[in-house]
Amino acid sequence: MPEVVAIGETMVVFCPEQSGPLRHVDRFVKRIAGSESNVAIGLSRLGHSAGWISRLGSDELGEYVLREIRAEGIDVSCVVRDDQAQTGLMVKEIHEGRETRVYYYRRDSAASRMSPADLNEEYLARCKFIHLSGVTPALSESCREMVNAAVTLAKAYGVKVSFDPNIRLRLWSVEEARETLLSLIPSADVLLPGLEEAKILTVESDPDRIVDSFLSLGVKIVALKCGEDGCLVADADTRQWVAPFKVRRVVDPIGAGDAFAAGFLAGLLEGRPLKECGRMANAMGALAVTTSGDFEGLPNRSEFGTFMSGQEVVPR
Amino acid sequence: MPEVVAIGETMVVFCPEQSGPLRHVDRFVKRIAGSESNVAIGLSRLGHSAGWISRLGSDELGEYVLREIRAEGIDVSCVVRDDQAQTGLMVKEIHEGRETRVYYYRRDSAASRMSPADLNEEYLARCKFIHLSGVTPALSESCREMVNAAVTLAKAYGVKVSFDPNIRLRLWSVEEARETLLSLIPSADVLLPGLEEAKILTVESDPDRIVDSFLSLGVKIVALKCGEDGCLVADADTRQWVAPFKVRRVVDPIGAGDAFAAGFLAGLLEGRPLKECGRMANAMGALAVTTSGDFEGLPNRSEFGTFMSGQEVVPR
Amino acid sequence: MPEVVAIGETMVVFCPEQSGPLRHVDRFVKRIAGSESNVAIGLSRLGHSAGWISRLGSDELGEYVLREIRAEGIDVSCVVRDDQAQTGLMVKEIHEGRETRVYYYRRDSAASRMSPADLNEEYLARCKFIHLSGVTPALSESCREMVNAAVTLAKAYGVKVSFDPNIRLRLWSVEEARETLLSLIPSADVLLPGLEEAKILTVESDPDRIVDSFLSLGVKIVALKCGEDGCLVADADTRQWVAPFKVRRVVDPIGAGDAFAAGFLAGLLEGRPLKECGRMANAMGALAVTTSGDFEGLPNRSEFGTFMSGQEVVPR
Amino acid sequence: MPEVVAIGETMVVFCPEQSGPLRHVDRFVKRIAGSESNVAIGLSRLGHSAGWISRLGSDELGEYVLREIRAEGIDVSCVVRDDQAQTGLMVKEIHEGRETRVYYYRRDSAASRMSPADLNEEYLARCKFIHLSGVTPALSESCREMVNAAVTLAKAYGVKVSFDPNIRLRLWSVEEARETLLSLIPSADVLLPGLEEAKILTVESDPDRIVDSFLSLGVKIVALKCGEDGCLVADADTRQWVAPFKVRRVVDPIGAGDAFAAGFLAGLLEGRPLKECGRMANAMGALAVTTSGDFEGLPNRSEFGTFMSGQEVVPR
Amino acid sequence: MPEVVAIGETMVVFCPEQSGPLRHVDRFVKRIAGSESNVAIGLSRLGHSAGWISRLGSDELGEYVLREIRAEGIDVSCVVRDDQAQTGLMVKEIHEGRETRVYYYRRDSAASRMSPADLNEEYLARCKFIHLSGVTPALSESCREMVNAAVTLAKAYGVKVSFDPNIRLRLWSVEEARETLLSLIPSADVLLPGLEEAKILTVESDPDRIVDSFLSLGVKIVALKCGEDGCLVADADTRQWVAPFKVRRVVDPIGAGDAFAAGFLAGLLEGRPLKECGRMANAMGALAVTTSGDFEGLPNRSEFGTFMSGQEVVPR
Amino acid sequence: MPEVVAIGETMVVFCPEQSGPLRHVDRFVKRIAGSESNVAIGLSRLGHSAGWISRLGSDELGEYVLREIRAEGIDVSCVVRDDQAQTGLMVKEIHEGRETRVYYYRRDSAASRMSPADLNEEYLARCKFIHLSGVTPALSESCREMVNAAVTLAKAYGVKVSFDPNIRLRLWSVEEARETLLSLIPSADVLLPGLEEAKILTVESDPDRIVDSFLSLGVKIVALKCGEDGCLVADADTRQWVAPFKVRRVVDPIGAGDAFAAGFLAGLLEGRPLKECGRMANAMGALAVTTSGDFEGLPNRSEFGTFMSGQEVVPR
Repeated sequence: MPEVVAIGETMVVFCPEQSGPLRHVDRFVKRIAGSESNVAIGLSRLGHSAGWISRLGSDELGEYVLREIRAEGIDVSCVVRDDQAQTGLMVKEIHEGRETRVYYYRRDSAASRMSPADLNEEYLARCKFIHLSGVTPALSESCREMVNAAVTLAKAYGVKVSFDPNIRLRLWSVEEARETLLSLIPSADVLLPGLEEAKILTVESDPDRIVDSFLSLGVKIVALKCGEDGCLVADADTRQWVAPFKVRRVVDPIGAGDAFAAGFLAGLLEGRPLKECGRMANAMGALAVTTSGDFEGLPNRSEFGTFMSGQEVVPR
Repeated sequence: MPEVVAIGETMVVFCPEQSGPLRHVDRFVKRIAGSESNVAIGLSRLGHSAGWISRLGSDELGEYVLREIRAEGIDVSCVVRDDQAQTGLMVKEIHEGRETRVYYYRRDSAASRMSPADLNEEYLARCKFIHLSGVTPALSESCREMVNAAVTLAKAYGVKVSFDPNIRLRLWSVEEARETLLSLIPSADVLLPGLEEAKILTVESDPDRIVDSFLSLGVKIVALKCGEDGCLVADADTRQWVAPFKVRRVVDPIGAGDAFAAGFLAGLLEGRPLKECGRMANAMGALAVTTSGDFEGLPNRSEFGTFMSGQEVVPR
Repeated sequence: MPEVVAIGETMVVFCPEQSGPLRHVDRFVKRIAGSESNVAIGLSRLGHSAGWISRLGSDELGEYVLREIRAEGIDVSCVVRDDQAQTGLMVKEIHEGRETRVYYYRRDSAASRMSPADLNEEYLARCKFIHLSGVTPALSESCREMVNAAVTLAKAYGVKVSFDPNIRLRLWSVEEARETLLSLIPSADVLLPGLEEAKILTVESDPDRIVDSFLSLGVKIVALKCGEDGCLVADADTRQWVAPFKVRRVVDPIGAGDAFAAGFLAGLLEGRPLKECGRMANAMGALAVTTSGDFEGLPNRSEFGTFMSGQEVVPR
Repeated sequence: MPEVVAIGETMVVFCPEQSGPLRHVDRFVKRIAGSESNVAIGLSRLGHSAGWISRLGSDELGEYVLREIRAEGIDVSCVVRDDQAQTGLMVKEIHEGRETRVYYYRRDSAASRMSPADLNEEYLARCKFIHLSGVTPALSESCREMVNAAVTLAKAYGVKVSFDPNIRLRLWSVEEARETLLSLIPSADVLLPGLEEAKILTVESDPDRIVDSFLSLGVKIVALKCGEDGCLVADADTRQWVAPFKVRRVVDPIGAGDAFAAGFLAGLLEGRPLKECGRMANAMGALAVTTSGDFEGLPNRSEFGTFMSGQEVVPR
Repeated sequence: MPEVVAIGETMVVFCPEQSGPLRHVDRFVKRIAGSESNVAIGLSRLGHSAGWISRLGSDELGEYVLREIRAEGIDVSCVVRDDQAQTGLMVKEIHEGRETRVYYYRRDSAASRMSPADLNEEYLARCKFIHLSGVTPALSESCREMVNAAVTLAKAYGVKVSFDPNIRLRLWSVEEARETLLSLIPSADVLLPGLEEAKILTVESDPDRIVDSFLSLGVKIVALKCGEDGCLVADADTRQWVAPFKVRRVVDPIGAGDAFAAGFLAGLLEGRPLKECGRMANAMGALAVTTSGDFEGLPNRSEFGTFMSGQEVVPR
Repeated sequence: MPEVVAIGETMVVFCPEQSGPLRHVDRFVKRIAGSESNVAIGLSRLGHSAGWISRLGSDELGEYVLREIRAEGIDVSCVVRDDQAQTGLMVKEIHEGRETRVYYYRRDSAASRMSPADLNEEYLARCKFIHLSGVTPALSESCREMVNAAVTLAKAYGVKVSFDPNIRLRLWSVEEARETLLSLIPSADVLLPGLEEAKILTVESDPDRIVDSFLSLGVKIVALKCGEDGCLVADADTRQWVAPFKVRRVVDPIGAGDAFAAGFLAGLLEGRPLKECGRMANAMGALAVTTSGDFEGLPNRSEFGTFMSGQEVVPR
């Protein structure tokens, strides 16, 4: 049984080979994109066993997503294939001098039809952590119910809940997001918010007050991601700022938060002190941004060890 | 005002650069696909004015579709941009030794939201033909109403109705298709069915009895596409088989029916006898299949003339 | 009838997919390049009607240029196709650490054969501006005559003349350029010179004296493009420096001058004060340099409005 | 534990994107190539569990091979990573009108260092079949010992041995090949030779005499692959020719033998009669040649069922 | 000093990566195209020394042509670089079901400025053959003079003249071609016409009468290329039909005539009887058509020997 | 006879078209990589004659290497083709934010089998310089002997020896490298070390002491490459720091050292004072880093002259 089970949607992305408005782009490559599966991949590369639960269409794009995640050594035995719905898809538009845009074709996707019935009680009961994000309850009513059911199951079996708010305002309004996420957060054993979304959720702006706010809601451990300021990690007893790692150049920031989560959970699984978990999280985030792709640059354990020890990652 | 106004959905297609299951394909190019816009393009290349009515998302993929169709000299002044829905998308999967597959991401697309309100009465009143296909009423209830409204308008203003049944069983059942299309077909001044779908609609298998059946429903002119047997054209007074043109090699059969429709309508616009219209239709179909792409191989008038006159189309 | 009619050559460019000396480059993509058509595209995207007059070969490259410009909604009804000459072509060579080089194959191109006979008097008489550049008179004697004839027609019908000196020393000598351009400039209602070429033309180096010099020649409005210093706009009554917009990163400077012209003319068409025209021109220039391609990054009106109002251009 | 464990080398292939002599080819794509892993993939797609044993370098190319095979749901838990040797590599050269050439960079590869120590006794003891090919003993002395050890282990635990002679004269001489393979073949419970190599091994040319010869050596079941004549399957009691399936077009013959093996073993695992095993083998071979790639075109069970039942494999 | 000196223009070709009208093609690769340099390459690959005389622009495309020809081991010491003119260029358009089209940008190219002054007397005096084609005198008046001067020099020094009529009706009229070529042909020691152009030149249609006609004009050796009928070789004393070689599939017919010439000249240089020269010529032509590219598929001597001896060309 | 003969291995490199771990890269282009051939190319582009001695497999990759080097006008008449071994190959892995990695497939390559027998005494005796690097003796015992033999021959005929230590720790240990290189260095007439490897060899860290150390070993001229500090050039009589040239942007540092060597040797061949040689070397190094590719950006003499004279290298 995997140590960590990540639950959520992974889509196929069509990524442009040129930058600029899509009307002028004619070539695309296919990749996958899913926050929760990124966390599972990060953990697997660091040597921890991970599983992924989701729904995929009984189509070739679903086959592709499944292959990619299985290729990383993730257990996919609980993934459901859905004959009635398609695998979600998105198209990216990259601007060198402006923000990246995405066009979603995920409404009514197979994953949006996840429901409590997709959860295998025995499977979840035997892992150490489930990892969820705030994207999933935004997908549909049945997804919201599934998230709640997963949390309930976890609590019943003493499985810890890791939660990344991951607020996407393309999917719901601030009000909806706040209401739903604030009902979930008190169940989180580990909460991994980014600073901006934490401000939205707590209506605080100071990191310390944000952390106080989450802890007072019942969260056991908070790891607040503050970008170039590193992270602030805290539980009821301790609280520390952990300085970030330096990288030569930020190549692609997407996936950094998921890498952070993977590093943090790896630390917890290994029984390390909070500060060390924060350092591992920061190191993973730093390595993620030095390669293009949402997860492609995540290190294996030996590269990770080399980087953590302050050495350049060099050729074998 | 355009001579012919074509009405229907045009999607963006992601076409694989390699053949085989999509899970193993990593590169795609972007094209457009729309039966009715293909007809408009065919007419425009032959020197006739054409317009296109549809809905597109206010997104980059919609911008792309609009650019491509406008590039062909089609009037797009009545196209509606929709802030609430996206431009439809499909992904192709090409098998060298088996059938091509397509994956649609068009449900709730902007075009599926076309409704009678999208029809500009003055614009339609002044053209000679409207061209419709059986794909549109399969998209949504409001599309079906729009098609009915367009036919009613055409009848009111003495505009002729050209109709291609174009049955797509991915979009509806045989029963639904028959019921809806058979209610539309009696209004067709020009009907352009393929042999197989004509069999479904008339429950006849002999070309002559098929034609009889359509004429008895009220259709004014029938041009029955019979592939390598050429076409059978008929109205109340005349009926003739028209032999097909030879091509060196069939490169890509998609779009042949639309090219046929464009050639036939061009003949009618030029006041040619039915048999000549059938020859022009056959010639367009033949030229269409010698180039990849749904419309890219359609000839301009001078290439068309050269081909019709039995000469090889050669370099200038 | 279009509000602005741009007149000039647009070529096909073969752009390398790799940088470095062309001998080592093996892949190219096809684009279009034309200063005057860029201005027309910029105006069209901002919501103004524009036409383009030129000559193209009766060849596939001409068809491509025509499609691209028509795709942008530009009126091309006065473009002449020439059976006797080919569409101009150029090959680009990109050096990451040195200057870009271009190799022209445009001598005796179809566009170099433009002559006064290509000008449709009625068409020109009904627009508000014609836009010309100093490239055209450098192409051939008949082009020079055509430019003169266009100016004469404009003056006869009260159409305003917009002129961009656009000195290209690959096409003629400084002496030839000065002599010809100085004979044209007094007819300009709007002159849009860059600082360096303005120095050549006026033999002044101070922006204010340059502007004085042009105004004294009879120019009605001068908008002097001074790069990172913004622009200096002036007419007989007013004179103002307009500060430039900031961009995150200059991706491709080519086309900035044409975008500037489009923004400035849009302002004039909308009856805005000179300073506001200068701001619009600066905004267009700034947006142009943030995307690769000569015109591909030009904004539509809503993106433009967002940028002008100081907000980030973000995904819909 | 997997039902079938395949053992052998899988290399990375650099495949040219153009045909012709490599000196003129400048673009390549990366794929994997391994006869035994192809068999495992075929079985996995048909719904059977399969494992793969090999050695890979501790390098990125090894990582790639591992990802691709794991992506197919193959158990790779017994694959050894080798710090002292690299993953084998080959470069393909494709000639449209002549034979394909390959350039091997596999000498001293990680897989050539496989040895009896790489075999996990418990793992092998619990499967139903091991699958071996004649490539492996040609790689090195230690590989030959490993193959012998695997056969010995299989015999000890009642695991059946499936063997494909797969003679590659690039790797050894006819004499060496005959000597080594003839010492292995008597241990084969299932032998899957091609007609040409069977002639080399038995010095017979008639299929029936070839089969007699193999059976007399002790082989339990022979499935002789005779290309367009189908296959001849036999054991001590029965012998039958099984007609081949028709395919529209042979796109890529490579991998057909491996697909055949997978189909045959699937039939045996399902307890089907020999003739039905031969039909399944033929069907797999037919499907394999309709797609490019060594294994990419292998069907999943539902596509396989559709094809076996004589229906076109059509879009869902 | 080279045994054979080929004289003529070599251009850069932009070849489309997709088929169909160029307006829809967006990617191109760069190659070289030149009939005479193809002959030199063919000879060099067969082990004979060859030189090439031409003019190239002092530009990167000229550098590219020079590199490609030098890469083949051709002596390019007499090639002139021209600061005043550009290297010729052409764009190809490939139609799968129709004729290939080419668009020339070669007028006033550097090579069209070749003149008698470009011929190094000492260099030419010491070779055994000069090879010329009918393309060169069609390029310009000075090229025609250069060809005449080369023939005169050859005659003066006892150097043999090889001539391929190579009539290109894009460059001149039938009348001009006949007049000019018929004035050159009597000087040919070796004439290598294709059947169709031979009919134009001799106004005969029967191969034997064509050969008679050329011999009566003073030609020493005629090798008439008759495609699938092989070739008819003749001199004053002997005359023989030489059967063609079979090829699996004709991949690209361009360059077959040049390969034929190289094979024939190689035979003559090696002192072989005419019939054997014809066989070598046929073999080269057969090998040329099995690979794409004008010269890329030409064999080296060992591949050539294998093919001549009737064996398949197989991997080393 | 060439002025300079460079001796060493040149491999084929498969370069990824995307950055990141190779497991996720699917497209590669082919290039060549060889330090000594780079020096020969640099000299040839500057107008000096150069030859290259090596061994290549009798395979297509060897053909490719030979074509590329011959394309540059390098004399390759002494290159040996080896039927028994393959051309060396390497695969590159590019990381935008970390170090580039390379995977070698060069063990037992054709070049590693170079031996004293490959040296043509007469050929070497007549050149002015031989150029060697420390890579070659690291390849094999026979290569080491060949290097020694080349030095001995050079000394016997008064040919000068140019030597670049080029320590590659992937090929041997520091101890092996030091021992072998220190035995060769005393024979160097020109030594071209980088600062870091010079520290390893001399166990000094101060540039002046490093130079002293090398001179005391018997080296005639030292040019110590110190990157952004320029170079320190010295012989028994003079010693000078030479300031580096500025470049707009370092695009690709690989090949800078070889370009430096070519510039320095060109200066010596032209009899220039040491300081001028150093300036030429610095200029070549600066130009090399402004283009991607190991040698592709090297200038011809006229570009070099323009750059040396402090002017921008601009389009013709």
